[in-house]
Amino acid sequence: MTDPIRPVRPPARKRKRPRNPSPEVRTRLLEAASSLIDEGGISRLRIDDVAERAGLSVGTVYLYFEGKDDLFSHVVIELTRVLRERLRIAYEGEGPLLQRLVAALDTYLDFVEEKRQGFLHFRDAGAVHTTGGRLSVWALNQHVQDMRPVLEAGMEQGEVRRTDPELLAQACLGLLQHMAGVWIETSRSWPREEFRRFLLQATYGLIRP
Amino acid sequence: MTDPIRPVRPPARKRKRPRNPSPEVRTRLLEAASSLIDEGGISRLRIDDVAERAGLSVGTVYLYFEGKDDLFSHVVIELTRVLRERLRIAYEGEGPLLQRLVAALDTYLDFVEEKRQGFLHFRDAGAVHTTGGRLSVWALNQHVQDMRPVLEAGMEQGEVRRTDPELLAQACLGLLQHMAGVWIETSRSWPREEFRRFLLQATYGLIRP
Repeated sequence: MTDPIRPVRPPARKRKRPRNPSPEVRTRLLEAASSLIDEGGISRLRIDDVAERAGLSVGTVYLYFEGKDDLFSHVVIELTRVLRERLRIAYEGEGPLLQRLVAALDTYLDFVEEKRQGFLHFRDAGAVHTTGGRLSVWALNQHVQDMRPVLEAGMEQGEVRRTDPELLAQACLGLLQHMAGVWIETSRSWPREEFRRFLLQATYGLIRP
Repeated sequence: MTDPIRPVRPPARKRKRPRNPSPEVRTRLLEAASSLIDEGGISRLRIDDVAERAGLSVGTVYLYFEGKDDLFSHVVIELTRVLRERLRIAYEGEGPLLQRLVAALDTYLDFVEEKRQGFLHFRDAGAVHTTGGRLSVWALNQHVQDMRPVLEAGMEQGEVRRTDPELLAQACLGLLQHMAGVWIETSRSWPREEFRRFLLQATYGLIRP
């Protein structure tokens, strides 16, 4: 697998690589890092803790990842892949465009509720600069590129107002990401159904012809 | 002046305070820090450079600010105050609500074009945690609290759809902030007039009854 992006900071030391890299070990390390980030954010992530949580040695962590930023980047890359895959299923589902966008919104809210504080840490991943730009910008742009053709098809069929599809996808996803952050930061002080209804109306307001 | 928020990290050393604090010195330090952040972001901000840019000693910087995070927080507090004041003039202007919201949008775009890269650094100020929460969240929430009564008045007069005014102000300002970030990150690859027209339509889509 070629990594789409990597941190721009040079690794602290010349790194050995595993002779026979194990996907299971890599996944265990990513899952350990992900759960630690959910709990304390990236600033408190320590390689020692990742090794302990994964039941592996610190040396093993450094065989698979260059350091903390590299590990964090790969956690974000993996979570972005998972969320993109779920959203793709929603976008490609049955029914008219609006129904598929509602399914995508529900998919996103499920993801946010799964991650809770972790969602905020990933949103704030901008602290890590990568070859693909700020990590959080890179992640959102992946979703923008997936949503854009869906909106373009909607414009063709008269279901979405004709405008710049890149700006419209950025608007829909930027709004969704911001509001999800507000929801988590206020400890979800609006019930999901009420919050969801607001987001549906807001998104419809953005896209309707 | 009582600071509305301050960083939660303890100061590195017990600090002397100036016996006769000079507002001019304070302003010079804040302006020096602000211009350095515009150029290189907070991660490259050095107290030495702030002192040099302001033409003052490092000791003077530490008389007025506890350190880098404290200085950065005060830069954000000051910029937020300036932007709030400008937006207040737009909100309280003449004419119907929509016209005043257009004026507010133009005010915001002027500010973004003034700051350019600096806008991104301030948006990403979340790295600094304060007694008011993440600094970037605190700053946006100030604007939300200013916009909310404007939207509530619009709801009373039938110019704005009836919904949760807190969520609607968050949606309008979160959208605006996100899109402004996209605009700056893409080196303003849409002409301002085109970008502005998109934002007006999007905001209208959010608020229209």
